[in-house]
Amino acid sequence: MNALPVSQRPFAARESKNAIEEGAAFAPKFGADGLIPAMAVDADSGAPLMLAYMNEESLRQTLEAGQAVYWSRSRNEIWHKGLTSGEFQDVEEILTDCDQDALVLRVRQRGGGCCHTKRATCFYRRVVVDEAAESPTVQLAPSSLVE
Amino acid sequence: MNALPVSQRPFAARESKNAIEEGAAFAPKFGADGLIPAMAVDADSGAPLMLAYMNEESLRQTLEAGQAVYWSRSRNEIWHKGLTSGEFQDVEEILTDCDQDALVLRVRQRGGGCCHTKRATCFYRRVVVDEAAESPTVQLAPSSLVE
Repeated sequence: MNALPVSQRPFAARESKNAIEEGAAFAPKFGADGLIPAMAVDADSGAPLMLAYMNEESLRQTLEAGQAVYWSRSRNEIWHKGLTSGEFQDVEEILTDCDQDALVLRVRQRGGGCCHTKRATCFYRRVVVDEAAESPTVQLAPSSLVE
Repeated sequence: MNALPVSQRPFAARESKNAIEEGAAFAPKFGADGLIPAMAVDADSGAPLMLAYMNEESLRQTLEAGQAVYWSRSRNEIWHKGLTSGEFQDVEEILTDCDQDALVLRVRQRGGGCCHTKRATCFYRRVVVDEAAESPTVQLAPSSLVE
């Protein structure tokens, strides 16, 4: 048994490209701003819910809590989603990509919904290109993935 | 009929919060680095394929081509995925989120797969927390969303 709680254990160092892509070490890459993007999707349907960011501390807290803990770029602070709204995201699984610079969180969304607009997902609109329009527009997405 | 090709039409200005969240204008927000994250998912299953970035020009080219055109941060250039590998992503739909600072591309992946490791998706691994281990590890993801 490791003496340190999960929230205090270091992530692995980023060794060779091969180790990052094929090895067993979890060595997430945080950007120049100290953040890694995390896409939350519904654990059952795979529907996209939201895209947010984590710093090292919030990722460690996510692993320990089993709930999504992000870094709020607007408030510049740790953001345990749901603490004020009740809209917690219970994390079923965290996926990482080949170069370990992005995360996908398969979550079960609690409460009224993921989005602060009270919708089930933040991705409620699709981009539409109308040949006659000056610029592309958005409209509510009929996609079955969103409903 | 608009005189400008899609790839040259401006995006709408970002007006009020309400206009961005509820209006008809597509007004994507590019970060300080000029980029917006774009998550590509399988158009049918919703399985996550890859997370990449677009600058304004590559997003316009995506809308015009109907295929994913990213900005390569490593090569610092426009990256029309598939031009060299044949692994094009035909775009079925582009979703944007409440504050329009992230995109989801529902795509049909052509060729051998999405990932340069020859896998169908870049998100082929899950993060595992072992109480006995010093650090979290990764293992091949059995998730049905990935297979």
